[in-house]
Parts: sequence; C-alpha cells; structure tokens
Amino acid sequence: MKHQIKEAKGKLGVLMPGLGAVATTFIAGVESIKKGLSKPIGSVAQMGHIRLGKRTENRNPLIKDFVPLASLNDLVFGGWDVYEDNVYTAAVKAEVLDRFMLEAIRPELESIVPMKAAFDKNFVKNLDGTHVKEYKTRYDLAQAVIEDIKNFQKEKGCDRVVMVWCGSTEIYHEAADVHQSLAAFEQGLKDNDARIAPSMIYAYAALTLGVPFANGAPNLTCDIPALVELSKKTKTPIAGKDFKTGQTLMKTILAPGLQARALGMEGWFSTNILGNRDGWVLDDPDNFKTKEVSKLGVLEDILMPDENPELYGDMYHKIRINYYPPRKDNKESWDNIDIFGWMGYKMQIKVNFLCRDSILAAPIVLDLALFIDFAKRAGMSGIQEWLSFYLKSPQTAPGLRPEHDIFKQLIKLQNTLRYLMGEDLITHLGLDYYEGILNEG
Amino acid sequence: MKHQIKEAKGKLGVLMPGLGAVATTFIAGVESIKKGLSKPIGSVAQMGHIRLGKRTENRNPLIKDFVPLASLNDLVFGGWDVYEDNVYTAAVKAEVLDRFMLEAIRPELESIVPMKAAFDKNFVKNLDGTHVKEYKTRYDLAQAVIEDIKNFQKEKGCDRVVMVWCGSTEIYHEAADVHQSLAAFEQGLKDNDARIAPSMIYAYAALTLGVPFANGAPNLTCDIPALVELSKKTKTPIAGKDFKTGQTLMKTILAPGLQARALGMEGWFSTNILGNRDGWVLDDPDNFKTKEVSKLGVLEDILMPDENPELYGDMYHKIRINYYPPRKDNKESWDNIDIFGWMGYKMQIKVNFLCRDSILAAPIVLDLALFIDFAKRAGMSGIQEWLSFYLKSPQTAPGLRPEHDIFKQLIKLQNTLRYLMGEDLITHLGLDYYEGILNEG
Amino acid sequence: MKHQIKEAKGKLGVLMPGLGAVATTFIAGVESIKKGLSKPIGSVAQMGHIRLGKRTENRNPLIKDFVPLASLNDLVFGGWDVYEDNVYTAAVKAEVLDRFMLEAIRPELESIVPMKAAFDKNFVKNLDGTHVKEYKTRYDLAQAVIEDIKNFQKEKGCDRVVMVWCGSTEIYHEAADVHQSLAAFEQGLKDNDARIAPSMIYAYAALTLGVPFANGAPNLTCDIPALVELSKKTKTPIAGKDFKTGQTLMKTILAPGLQARALGMEGWFSTNILGNRDGWVLDDPDNFKTKEVSKLGVLEDILMPDENPELYGDMYHKIRINYYPPRKDNKESWDNIDIFGWMGYKMQIKVNFLCRDSILAAPIVLDLALFIDFAKRAGMSGIQEWLSFYLKSPQTAPGLRPEHDIFKQLIKLQNTLRYLMGEDLITHLGLDYYEGILNEG
Amino acid sequence: MKHQIKEAKGKLGVLMPGLGAVATTFIAGVESIKKGLSKPIGSVAQMGHIRLGKRTENRNPLIKDFVPLASLNDLVFGGWDVYEDNVYTAAVKAEVLDRFMLEAIRPELESIVPMKAAFDKNFVKNLDGTHVKEYKTRYDLAQAVIEDIKNFQKEKGCDRVVMVWCGSTEIYHEAADVHQSLAAFEQGLKDNDARIAPSMIYAYAALTLGVPFANGAPNLTCDIPALVELSKKTKTPIAGKDFKTGQTLMKTILAPGLQARALGMEGWFSTNILGNRDGWVLDDPDNFKTKEVSKLGVLEDILMPDENPELYGDMYHKIRINYYPPRKDNKESWDNIDIFGWMGYKMQIKVNFLCRDSILAAPIVLDLALFIDFAKRAGMSGIQEWLSFYLKSPQTAPGLRPEHDIFKQLIKLQNTLRYLMGEDLITHLGLDYYEGILNEG
Ligand SMILES: NC(=O)c1ccc[n+]([C@@H]2O[C@H](COP(=O)([O-])OP(=O)(O)OC[C@H]3O[C@@H](n4cnc5c(N)ncnc54)[C@H](O)[C@@H]3O)[C@@H](O)[C@H]2O)c1
Ligand SMILES: NC(=O)c1ccc[n+]([C@@H]2O[C@H](COP(=O)([O-])OP(=O)(O)OC[C@H]3O[C@@H](n4cnc5c(N)ncnc54)[C@H](O)[C@@H]3O)[C@@H](O)[C@H]2O)c1
Ligand SMILES: NC(=O)c1ccc[n+]([C@@H]2O[C@H](COP(=O)([O-])OP(=O)(O)OC[C@H]3O[C@@H](n4cnc5c(N)ncnc54)[C@H](O)[C@@H]3O)[C@@H](O)[C@H]2O)c1
Ligand SMILES: NC(=O)c1ccc[n+]([C@@H]2O[C@H](COP(=O)([O-])OP(=O)(O)OC[C@H]3O[C@@H](n4cnc5c(N)ncnc54)[C@H](O)[C@@H]3O)[C@@H](O)[C@H]2O)c1
Ligand code: NA
Ligand code: NA
Repeated sequence: MKHQIKEAKGKLGVLMPGLGAVATTFIAGVESIKKGLSKPIGSVAQMGHIRLGKRTENRNPLIKDFVPLASLNDLVFGGWDVYEDNVYTAAVKAEVLDRFMLEAIRPELESIVPMKAAFDKNFVKNLDGTHVKEYKTRYDLAQAVIEDIKNFQKEKGCDRVVMVWCGSTEIYHEAADVHQSLAAFEQGLKDNDARIAPSMIYAYAALTLGVPFANGAPNLTCDIPALVELSKKTKTPIAGKDFKTGQTLMKTILAPGLQARALGMEGWFSTNILGNRDGWVLDDPDNFKTKEVSKLGVLEDILMPDENPELYGDMYHKIRINYYPPRKDNKESWDNIDIFGWMGYKMQIKVNFLCRDSILAAPIVLDLALFIDFAKRAGMSGIQEWLSFYLKSPQTAPGLRPEHDIFKQLIKLQNTLRYLMGEDLITHLGLDYYEGILNEG
Repeated sequence: MKHQIKEAKGKLGVLMPGLGAVATTFIAGVESIKKGLSKPIGSVAQMGHIRLGKRTENRNPLIKDFVPLASLNDLVFGGWDVYEDNVYTAAVKAEVLDRFMLEAIRPELESIVPMKAAFDKNFVKNLDGTHVKEYKTRYDLAQAVIEDIKNFQKEKGCDRVVMVWCGSTEIYHEAADVHQSLAAFEQGLKDNDARIAPSMIYAYAALTLGVPFANGAPNLTCDIPALVELSKKTKTPIAGKDFKTGQTLMKTILAPGLQARALGMEGWFSTNILGNRDGWVLDDPDNFKTKEVSKLGVLEDILMPDENPELYGDMYHKIRINYYPPRKDNKESWDNIDIFGWMGYKMQIKVNFLCRDSILAAPIVLDLALFIDFAKRAGMSGIQEWLSFYLKSPQTAPGLRPEHDIFKQLIKLQNTLRYLMGEDLITHLGLDYYEGILNEG
Repeated sequence: MKHQIKEAKGKLGVLMPGLGAVATTFIAGVESIKKGLSKPIGSVAQMGHIRLGKRTENRNPLIKDFVPLASLNDLVFGGWDVYEDNVYTAAVKAEVLDRFMLEAIRPELESIVPMKAAFDKNFVKNLDGTHVKEYKTRYDLAQAVIEDIKNFQKEKGCDRVVMVWCGSTEIYHEAADVHQSLAAFEQGLKDNDARIAPSMIYAYAALTLGVPFANGAPNLTCDIPALVELSKKTKTPIAGKDFKTGQTLMKTILAPGLQARALGMEGWFSTNILGNRDGWVLDDPDNFKTKEVSKLGVLEDILMPDENPELYGDMYHKIRINYYPPRKDNKESWDNIDIFGWMGYKMQIKVNFLCRDSILAAPIVLDLALFIDFAKRAGMSGIQEWLSFYLKSPQTAPGLRPEHDIFKQLIKLQNTLRYLMGEDLITHLGLDYYEGILNEG
Repeated sequence: MKHQIKEAKGKLGVLMPGLGAVATTFIAGVESIKKGLSKPIGSVAQMGHIRLGKRTENRNPLIKDFVPLASLNDLVFGGWDVYEDNVYTAAVKAEVLDRFMLEAIRPELESIVPMKAAFDKNFVKNLDGTHVKEYKTRYDLAQAVIEDIKNFQKEKGCDRVVMVWCGSTEIYHEAADVHQSLAAFEQGLKDNDARIAPSMIYAYAALTLGVPFANGAPNLTCDIPALVELSKKTKTPIAGKDFKTGQTLMKTILAPGLQARALGMEGWFSTNILGNRDGWVLDDPDNFKTKEVSKLGVLEDILMPDENPELYGDMYHKIRINYYPPRKDNKESWDNIDIFGWMGYKMQIKVNFLCRDSILAAPIVLDLALFIDFAKRAGMSGIQEWLSFYLKSPQTAPGLRPEHDIFKQLIKLQNTLRYLMGEDLITHLGLDYYEGILNEG
C-alpha cells in the first residue's frame, strides 16, 4: 500500500553553510543543467533507475519518475561563508570547473552572495575569513541564523527549504554533557558554551524551523542527542555525516566484495594527495583527526574482525592525507591492500583513483537535498538511515552498528523507496523463474 | 517453514576432469586442512557467516553451522587428465604451492592418479598429452566415463559423488542442432558427431548417473538444452560456467559500485599477464575466444547501456590476455577505467591486482562441490542460478538476463539458503529500528 | 679549437610531410612562443643547459646561448598532407591543445595550408585522404616535391630549409635491392617501383636539394644505403628514426639504470592505450609491425644479453599497443618489469605514464630542425648519430650497434657540441678536486 | 699509464657494526655464492662489465677481470650488535631469506657471533638490546673497538680489514664544534662528549688503524672534518653515506632522464611502506629526520632549480615513510611525479616499486667493501667520491655540490677505474666512426 506523500510543488530553497569548492560546484552544475548545458551525472536521484517487480516484468523506471521529487528547475540556492566572494568568484578560485563553462553561467552565479557566517576560529584554525557575524552568546547567533533562513525563504518565495552543511571540517571533539539533551544544549547556547560548534548552531536553527538538515562534513553537528531530540520534536528529518566520495567510496565498494568471498586481509594502506582549501584545512592535525575517525571506522564495520578473527583479526589499517599543492582539487588516492586466500597465500591489490573531489561530492549534495525534502513530505522525521548510502560515517539509532557496505546501503535506500511507494521489496531470491527446481516430495 | 533436506552422511567423492593447477591446489588445500596445516580461506561455505533475523538479534552463524554440508573430512578425490602425473607431481609442476608445504602432504597427493582422459585434440590444440582413452564413437567414450564413475564410487566407498570440470578451456563453438535436445545429443554420440566436446561427454556421464555437475571453464559443456533436459530428467543440479576469479571478480565488484552511484563510464581497458599452462592454452586464439566471450558480457549486463545511454552508451570495453612466462601462476591484471561525473568531468581508476589464479579458484571448487551436493540433497534439480556468485558466465533460465553484480548474487545465494532453512529473507529495509520515524497521519 | 660554423641568419623554413597531431602541435607551440604565450618546455636546444669546464667553474650556459642556432622568431612552416585541412582545423580535430589557446593563434595557424601529398595507400591502409598528387611514375612525383620545396623557399624568402617527416607510420618492409644504391634507387623511381615508399620520395627530394632531413616515424625512409649515399654526395645531414617519446623514452631511462646496478631481468611487459589517428593507423598489423620492430630492439641493445647471460639471457620482452578511443591523444602506458637481485630474489617495478603523445613529440621536431640545420652550417653530412638522443631507432654507421641508453646519447650530443665549439670534453673523472687523493709512491 | 696497485692476496676481513637484515643478507649471500648456490646479482664489481677502447674493439671485460679485487673466497666476516643473536638466528628473524636457503648455509652463519656493541640508546630510542659494552668515557669505548678489530684480524688471519657501517640509523644531529678537527674530536672522546655518536666511534677506531671505512646509513659518522682529517693522516679511504636503494635509486635514475629532456616538474610525491626493524627505528621522528634529509637533497641537486627556474622553480617534493607491518622487509614505494611539457601541458608518471630492501642493499655492502679495499691498495686516501654511485648522500670535498645523477656517478666510477688501470677515458663522442662526417673546409 502506498504511503501518503505531499506533492513537490513550488520552489525548494537549498541553503548551505560553506560556499566553497563543493557548494559552488553543486550550484554551477544545477544552473548549467537548467540551461541544458550538462546532465546530472552522479546523481542517483536523477539518473538512477529502480527495478520494480520481477526481473521478467522489465519495470525499471528512473527514480525521479517513480518518486515525487522536487524538479531541478524549482531549486534556488543560498548560503553563508566566512569569505565574501560571490559564487562565481569562489568557483573561479576553487579551480574545479573550467573557465569556459563558468562564463556561460556567470550571471546566475554572481547573483548568489554569501550571508555572514556563524563562525568560531577555534574550530578551524587555518581559515582567516572576516565575513562573520558578531555575537554575544551562541544563543544570539542561533537567532540570527534563524532570521537569515526566514528572510531567504521569503525573498526567494520558497515553498520549502532544506539545509546541507558544506562548510570546512571542524576540529575533533566528542559529545559532552552540553550535547546530551535539548534542554542542556539550549542552556549551553545561552551560556555561550565553547563546546557548541558553529555547525551545530546552523543545525539548531534549521531544525527549530522544521528545515531538514544534512551534514556533509565529518563534524558531529546533528549527530548528538540534543539535536536528534529536536528533530523528533519538530518532526524534521536529519542525515549525517561526511559525504562518501573518493577513497572511502572505493573502500566501501571493494571491502564488501573481498569479504563476500571470505578472502583474508592483512593490511590496507591508504594514502591521498590533494591541494585544495579542504586539504589545507586538513593539514591541521586537529581537523585531520575528525576526518580520520570518520574514515577509519569503515573497514572494521564491514569486515567485523571480532566475528572473523582468522580472516581479519590482524588487519592493519593506515590512512594518510597529504597536502600536495600540484594536485589542487584533483585529489588522488593510492591504496595498497594485502589480502590472503586459500592456504594463506598472499595477494595484493593496488587501486589508484585519479578523482576530482568536488565533482564526486556535488551530486551528493543534490541527492541529499532532494531526498531529505522528500522524506519530510513523506512524513518521516529524525535519523534517516536509508541515506547512509551517501555518507562516510552514517548516523544510526543509538547502539545500532552502522552499515558501511555500499551495496546493503543501496538496497536499504531502494527498498525504502519501494516501501513508501507501495511496491514489493526485492530479495533477489528468484527461485520462481525455475519451474520445478524444487522437487517437493 | 524449513525445507526437507537429506543428511550429509558418509563420504562425498569429488571427481574432476582435469587435474592441473586448480584441481591439485584444491586437493592439496583440503588435505592440508584435514591435517590442521591450513584453513579454508576463500571458501564462503566454510568461513563465511550469514546474518539471520534482525540486526539487533546478533545471529550471525557460520554458513557451515547453519546448513547441513558435507564435512571436509568426508571428501575423497579423483579425476582424469591427458597427462599421467599423479597429483603430487602435477602440483610440483604447476609451481603454485611451495615445496615445503607439498612435502608435508606428499603421500596423500601421490595416491591420487588420474584416469585416462576423454579427449579430442581439436578442442585444445596446445596440449600434447597421451594419457587418453581410445574410442570408436563418442557414445563408447561416454560409457567408459560412466564406468569410471561407478568404479570410483565403489572403490572409495562413497555415499555420493559430484563432478567439477577443471579441465582446459576448449575452443570456441556455439550450440548447434545436435545440442538442442537430449534425443539429438544421444544420436550425435552414436554418430560420433565432432561438435560434441569432451567436456560434454563427462557432463553427460555424470548427469546420467544423477551426479551433480559444475563447470569451472568457459566452455559450453552443460550449458546446452540437451543437458539441461537430462538434468531435469534425472533430477540432478547443474551449475556453470567459468570460475569467477581475478580480474572479472574485481570487475563485478567495482562496476556495480560505480553504477550504484550513477557515475558514467567511457571505457574499461583490462589487460592480464600470466605464464601458466592455462595461459599457454589461451594463447591459441580459438581457445581465447571462449574466454573472451565469457569475460566481455559482464560489464554490459551490469551497466545496461540500453537503459542508461547517457552514462554507458559509448562505453568501450577491451580485454587482453597475454602469455608472459615470468609470471607463472601469479597472474596479474591491470585495469584502467575511464569514468565521468558531475558536468561530464573525467576521472580515472586504475586497479592492479597481483593475484594467484589457482589460489582464488581452489576454494570455488570446494564451495561448488559442497553446495551442489547440498542442492541435490535438498531436492533441487536443473540450473542452480543461486550459485552464479561463483561464476563468470552464469547459466540461467532461457531468456533470463544473467545477474553479474556479485552483491546481488550473494544476496541471492544467502536468501536461497535462508529460504531452504525456513528463515526470513533479508531486505535491509530496517525502518523498524527507528520508532516513530513515520508520522502516520 | 673551435670548428668553423656558418652564421644562422635569415629565415629557416621547416617543411613537414604530414600535418597531423605532432606537426600542428609543434607549429602551434612555436607560434604561441613567438607571441610570448608559452615557453619551449621539452626542448633541450632552447631550455637545456650544458656544463663547460670543471664543476667548480660554474659555467653552465643554455645550449642556445652556447651554440649558434636559428632563432625561433626566424622559423616559418609548411608541409603536405593527404587531408586538405589547414593547420588550425587540423589542430582542432587532433584534440591535443585546448580551444582557448588555439583561438589566440588562430590566424597564424589558418594561414598554413598543406600542399598535396605524395601518397600511396598501399603504405597506410587506414587513411582515406584525397588531397594527393597524381603521378605517372615515382620519378615525376619526386620532381613535383622538389618543385614544392623550391617554391616554398622562394615564397617565404627562406635562407635555409630543413625537412622533418611527421607523416603516418608506413607499413613494414625491409630494404630491398632497389634501396641499395643511389643508381638503383633512381632507376626504381623511373620504373615506378612499388617498393619505394612515399616517405623516401620526400627524403630523396630534400637531399637532392641539400635540404637536411630527419625522420620522426619508424619507416625506413632515409635509413637505406641509397639515400645515405645521396646525403654524402650533396653533403647533407640526415637523422632517423622514430621520435623517442612515451614508453620507449621511459625504457631508455630505466633500463640503463637497472643495468648499471647489475640487476637481473626476467621480463618486461609494456602495454599502451591510445585513441588518436596515429593509434588508428597502428591498429593495422602491417603498420604496427614497423613500430614494434622499432620499439623492441631497445632493450636488447641496452642490456646486451649475450654478454650478460646470467642477468638477461632469459629476458621476455612483450609490447602491446591498443587502440582505445576514450584516451584520444593522451596516450597512457603501463609497464611491468620483473627484475631479480641478490641471490636471485624477485622484485617488480610498475610504471604508469599518463603522457600526451604529441606534447612530447613537438619539442623533438623543434630540436631536430634546429640541430640538423646547425649540423649543415657546421659542415657535417651523412648520418648524425649524435642526434640519436631523440630517436627510438637510431640510424648508425653500417655494423655499428646503435646506442639506446639515453644518458650515453646525451653525453654524445653534448660532447659533440663541446667538440665543435672547441671546449674540453667531459669525462666525470674529477679526481683533481681531491688534493692528494692519490698517494703517488 | 697504469697506476701502481698492490696485489689482493690473503684474506680480507669485512667488519660490520650492526648485524641486522642487511648485514646478514650480505653474509648469507657470499656464503651461498662460495658454495655455488647463487650468483652475486646486483654486484657491479662482480657481474658488471666495463667497455674499454672504441665501440668497434669489442673489449668489454667483467670489472672483476679488469681490476685486481679481492676474491669472494677470501672474504671473512665479523661484526657487532646490541643483540646477541648469531648471524643464522638474526637472518631467520629478519625474514628476508627463505628458510630452505638458510638451512643450506646454517653452519657458516651460526659460527659468526656479534661482538658487544658500542652503543648509546639516546641515538636509537626504539632499540632495547643489552649486548653492549660498558664504558666510562667514549675514549675507552674507542680503545675497546680498536682491540676488537685487532683481535678479529689476528684470529681470522686477515691480510687486510675493511669496515662497513650496517647499524641502525641514528637520530638527526648536525656537525658541532667537537666534530670540526681531530684534536677537538679526541678531546671530546676523553670528555665523553654526548655529541659523539656510536657510529663515529667505530669509524674513529677503524681509521686509526688504517682500516678503510664506508657508511651505509644516513648518519654523519665519517662525514665530519675530524674524521676526514684522520683518514688523510692515516692514508685511509672513506666513503659515505646511506646505501642508495629502492625509491631513491629510482629517483636518481628517473630524474636525470626527465631533466635530460628539459621536461618541467611541478611535484614529486614519494611514499613508502615497510615493516622491518629498520622501519620500526625510522618510526621515531628523530631518526626519520636523518633519513629524510638524506633523501630530500637528491632532486634539488639533479634538477638545479636555481638554474632552471621555469622548469623546476616551483617543484614540490614530499617524502613519507610509513611503518606498515604486513610488508616486512618487502618495502614498497609509490611515487607520483607531476611533470609538464610543451606549452605547459601536464603529464603524470607513477612508479610502484615492489622491492626488497636488504636484497638491494647487500650487494652494495659487497661492492663498497671490495672497492674501498682496492682503493687502499691503489694508494688512495680520504673521500672516495667515485663511490657515490652507491650512496644516497655522497660525501664530497667541502663546497663541492654532490653529484646524484646515477649515470654521471657510473661514468665517474668507470673512468676512475680506467684511469687507474691506464686505459683511455670514454667520452662517447664517436665522430670517428663516421668517415668524412666533417667537411673540413
Ligand atoms: N569530496 C569532497 O569534496 C568532500 C567529501 C567529504 C566531505 N567533504 C567535506 O565537505 C566540506 C566542504 O568541502 P570543500 O571542498 O567545499 O571545502 P572548501 O574549503 O572549499 O569550502 C568550505 C567552505 O566553508 C567555509 N566555512 C568554514 N566554516 C564556516 C562556517 N562556520 N560558516 C560558513 N562557512 C564556513 C569556508 O570558508 C570555505 O569556503 C568539507 O568539510 C569537506 O571535508 C568534502
Ligand atoms: N583462476 C583460475 O585458475 C581459473 C578461473 C576461471 C576458470 N579457470 C579454468 O579452469 C580450468 C583449469 O585451470 P588450470 O589453471 O587448472 O589449468 P591447467 O592447464 O593447469 O589444468 C587443466 C588440465 O586439464 C587437462 N585436460 C584438458 N583437457 C582434458 C580432458 N578432455 N580430459 C581431462 N583432462 C583434460 C589438462 O591436461 C590440464 O592438466 C581452465 O579451463 C581455466 O580456464 C581457471
Ligand atoms: N609521440 C608521438 O606522437 C610520436 C612518437 C614517435 C613517432 N611518432 C610518429 O610521428 C608520426 C606523426 O604522428 P601524429 O600523431 O602526428 O600522427 P597523425 O596521424 O596525427 O598525423 C600524421 C599525418 O600524416 C599524414 N600523412 C600520411 N601519409 C602522408 C604522406 N604520404 N604525405 C603527407 N602526409 C601524409 C596523415 O594524413 C596525417 O595527417 C607518426 O608516424 C607517428 O608514428 C609520433
Ligand atoms: N635498503 C636498505 O636496506 C638500506 C638502504 C639504505 C640504508 N640502509 C641503512 O642500513 C642500516 C641497516 O639496515 P637494516 O635493514 O639491516 O637494519 P636492521 O635494523 O635490521 O639492522 C641494524 C642493526 O644494527 C644494530 N645496531 C644499532 N646500533 C648499533 C650499534 N651502535 N652497534 C652495533 N649494532 C647496532 C641493531 O641492533 C640492528 O640489529 C640502517 O641504518 C638502514 O637505514 C638500509
Ligand atoms: Na595489453
Ligand atoms: Na603517505
């Protein structure tokens, strides 16, 4: 039976704290798609198909034709940054897209100028922007962001708004008492508690207004009890954290494959070179720590060494990120994987990924924006685990092991859509294609 | 409800046409496992777990503890080859395993000597063995193999027997009229029809006796209507074809991952270097053709360019296999994958797999033997699509697109086991972990 | 004592049969350098230094400041092709250079239009151009090319002219009787002997006029006794053959290094993917043969297996070139080198070169043109072995083993320049920096 | 004219401080060569040829047949270590060589037991061995080592002795006043100055006795004015420092090749994984610093960015060494080189070297031992720059830029040998092979 889902009519505002490489690439892409200059490659919501029914029915619509999503033509953009460059200028500086393409959509991009940021340099030492809000307490800051959102929605005439964090990675810190309940958090805001990160303030503002929130960086942000509580209170969907791109994307593709075949693993060494601003921020060990924690958990959760000690008990996992200017945004990774098979014989796999970081991240911003808006219209609230397909470090119910295997995440996403749209879930059993395969008796 | 399954008591004979690198590595491994010298790494049947019930139930038994499989201690081995070397000598020549290990199980290996082969040099030009059966018609040859099987079973005191083709790749040929029905086939045997390959004769002999048959090479063998008909008639399970190892294994891991993310693909170039006897046989273009066809289909079936023309319509897929003696059995592959993402930007993935061909294939022989014996005891017959997890070129019901995505194949295998054992199928939906996630009304 | 060298005054015409990817990239580069838009990177003649005297003298001038070469501003270009596209259009189609750069020098490029080619489709089957000269005998054809050269020199007001073959690779053929002497060759021209390749006709025309000739393709062309004889007769320098770029460049860098250390080698596997017109021509086995022969000799001559049988006696060398359209001109190579060291232990080196074929070849055209003009002015004639630094398959005196080691080739080039300019040759002995190092008695 | 060289008669003792992976591999190799079980692969002194005279003379003897070197059968071994394992046990623990090979030479290896080390834990924090000499002042320690050497020579009946440092890398420190003159150094010994490293004490002891000394690690050791002074005083040859193997070997092969062609370089990123004791010591940042300094200088000296600012002015060079246990002694490196060519177009080279550290280092120990003994007999003393071919960080005359280009180093080595043996130096000019190439007039 199909679930009740509100229509996607009117404009959808996408607000992003952080108008850097990822956000500007995302915006430029959607604007060029609107003009017919490119396609939403990498967006599962736009280009992905979903199989319905039996294999022989040949029902395989595009997801966007199956599920009522906002149309790309209805998207409007806004955001905050600690630098005052408009989106055109920021995109030129990011050196992700070629100049020829950028000129073609220059007016659209120039018209988007960042609002002043809610910022605290203690959370990102390598940034020196000055386009920031002044404030007494974090509570005032949150109110200012709430006003920003309301004004944006009014000015742009948006039917609905969603927010996706595209700001820099904040330094590593763990959830403290001030993050444990909404009451403690709100008290903390008033006390200007230094443990409340800027990203949390944006998330608090969004959720207070019932604006769905997704987190593309590895910071805690909405992954704390206080904000989960708020999301349930205001019946708002949330999803986090850290866009799954590049090396980790690869890892969650390859590791399940090796594990599926019961191949053992002695070690996995991952190194990266990148030369963009994100790389510069991550050159600070405190900020790198946040990223590292987000990246390291992946293998353990897929391989489950506790259950497979003979295969994965001694696995040595090392990750290095190197700031290397020649590479700019064209991040490159090299992985060496030491596996072993039958009778303990050793083999090696080396993967060299010449990727483009923001090119991989941009369509994820789009899909998270479209799906989290859809989730809201479908009456869903709180943690949306089915979006973990897009995230390096998926937020789950307390005590629930996150699922990192991208293929299980995909089935979860697709079966969630099938479920909401009243279609049969798919199990890939398929014995019924084979008449009489089971001699019953 | 649990399905009725016969017990796995008594000895299980594993008969292999072709006692070369793969078969001897398989046998040596099982013998060393019996002696406690190694573990069945790479065998999903032995080392793999299967999740049952909800994630929070923490039920994750080993497959071999969940499903009644034959015990490794009950396995006994036999086979045929065109060379008369016993398994110890053949293993030494194959240079897969180290001498120190082989000495430790020498008596067990020396005791296994090949029976004379059913052979026809027209199907494998690069072989010159003389340990072959003489015959008038292929019908006589089939009868001789039937006798071999019966004698083996009696001499070894086997409760049950299975057969796995581990012989060389035969030259490329397509199914002709003589392969279209059991009647035509049996007439062809009597007429000594040159289009009936030696591998088909082994398969015919096995199926006639109700012995389950799996095909590890890319030859047609049991993948013809005549032998499917026979398998149904004698209620015998069959599975084929071509062990999924090395580069193709990688391809069916990576391609689904890229497709899952709606990343486009311009080209995939695959090259291989290998220096074993298999490589030498494949240096003959006719035999390579058989392998190439088996390897090429994989991408198309996963990416479905007809449904995704903008992403995969222009994909250029090229596969090269190079005989290169220095590498011996340590086959190595290099893949270059040209992908594109958001706004058409190009990226590259390069995968260098230093693998060991027979080390990857040996546990597949084991799993196919164990599972096809299990299938027989569970009353299954004909094509076992759920074993396509192990095969490069899975045999399916006529008209049914084979599924190459290894993750869908794994779910199919696991859900088949769950189904037969009366457990719930798994869908990864998981909304029920999130109380009140859906505001109903 | 310095050798007598004529001044480089007035214009130098550079004529190229074949205005394809390499030639147009070369011309576009020089034109953009003239306009100050780029630098002659990769040109040793322009950017390379040469050490003079002792290390402590710190004399290390640019080669172009040491040796009297033609100035880039004095270069003018012309050529022939079987397609009638001007250099701008041909460059756009070649997809080597970006459009933005090409627009900036469009008028200069558009003004260069190819003359009709001396062509014979039997030598390049995959080409279908029709911009070709009609002729009765090859002798007439040669006369027509001679006229072309004279007209070009007059129209452009050139002081001197050189010719560099940048045409497609012709099919493999070996020197026959008709190529053995000038007399036989000229008779062959008159008899329209089908074994005289088009490239030989261009070379004959050039040498007849005393125009220095260099050959960038692996065809025989001037590497036959007849044309060597002619070059001596008209006192004209010649050099060939096959620009040393990409994988072979790498090979002649790496192999001498490994050999220097007395490391053994079991095998070298080289594979290439490329998708330009050159790749398409080489997809024809007859044309590939010419390239393969040129590429294969390299290792043998460097490693000298006959003198080092224990290190290189069993070396297995395999080269593959694969036409792979996604790659266009961005040729990519992957090499796997199997070496062994102390006590026979094995090691592997893998080199992945993401190169750009024409970008590497263009400065070689420049250097050959500049140096062969210089050679002529310095009174040199016949085979210029000191230019083998630039060539995959260097032409040498009969019976003289070619030197492939790029470092020996470089010393040869530099010591030739030092010699002609009256400077001390360099031996790197350098004992004199160490006072009293030798206790003489 | 041939230089006066003493005969190589009688036994040559090779003493090594540090009987770890490299030293035991070296000793095992020579012992297995003595027994005819293997060849001295990787030893230029044993397997390398040297061309004499003109190319057409075909004189190309083995170096060992050209120069009077000690015979391998005359080598005897000894050493010191902070662990008391004999060479057999130490070799087994090092896991470099296979057990089967080690068993075959077990008695020879077991008979070599280390003397107690001159050690100071402040210089190598990650070591905890206790097989060390007790001492009051470093002066006493030096005397004890001098006694060790004398005893060894007497016991083994050696005609001559050489010493090669094969000990762990000591922490980074720079030459201080105490290292500036022999007088200051000897005073420091007596004052037990903490800035005198253990390796210097061994070198001091050796040089005092006229025993030639070579340094295989990147520590200063004999690369200080005090010990150069001593080497001249006692007319003893010295050479240092840091065996050139693996990644740096590759770098000094590749970089000269790219520079030879005037290709620009934007960056070179080098990463390593290794899991042996050397890797464990280098995991301490202070010890890594010593190695890093030794490795970093290489590129700058080859590319000379000051003279080639347009090509190398912005070169970014980064080196990472990662302790990664699965790799053991099979060190592996991955290099990414960002180059640019004609018109600034970018290209990439990736080199993946699966090497074996000690296998590459062992023959260097041999060659240094043989050549430095030869140098002594040839009457040479002080710094032997011609041995820089073997060293990452060659010691040179004060103020003289070290030469890192391995090909120039090789010519220097070979021309030194030619010079000492009275043969013509080779310049590769070779014009004389071409009669009449120069039209004189
Ligand atoms: N593939 C990817 O690019 C990828 C993948 C996973 C996660 N991420 C994360 O996405 C985020 C964005 O990546 P990017 O490449 O665009 O980085 P970027 O540095 O180009 O952009 C981040 C922007 O955020 C701004 N910013 C920082 N703190 C802010 C604040 N408090 N308020 C408003 N603006 C703020 C910065 O000024 C900067 O312009 C990073 O956290 C990165 O780690 C990116
Ligand atoms: N990873 C892998 O090793 C792998 C993967 C997929 C498929 N395969 C296939 O498995 C098969 C075995 O591979 P291998 O490496 O062991 O090859 P192999 O050449 O070492 O062994 C094959 C053996 O089959 C024998 N043979 C050939 N025709 C026969 C006949 N008619 N009757 C009896 N014996 C016969 C040969 O003499 C040979 O000893 C090959 O077809 C190969 O293509 C192997
Ligand atoms: N790095 C390199 O690019 C490289 C290296 C070594 C050698 N080469 C050789 O250089 C040559 C040029 O390479 P390219 O990439 O420019 O190839 P290309 O195919 O782009 O250009 C060759 C041109 O020659 C023309 N041509 C063929 N026969 C001709 C004839 N008889 N007269 C006049 N024109 C003729 C063709 O029409 C074509 O336009 C090829 O032979 C190639 O093998 C190139
Ligand atoms: N390819 C190579 O292996 C390579 C290349 C260049 C340099 N090196 C250098 O060679 C040296 C040896 O390398 P290895 O792989 O054999 O290392 P290793 O750790 O296996 O051996 C070094 C040995 O030196 C001993 N030692 C340390 N200080 C000592 C002292 N003061 N006196 C006596 N013994 C002492 C240690 O106990 C150890 O057994 C290291 O400094 C390494 O950096 C090695
Ligand atoms: Na290939
Ligand atoms: Na690294």
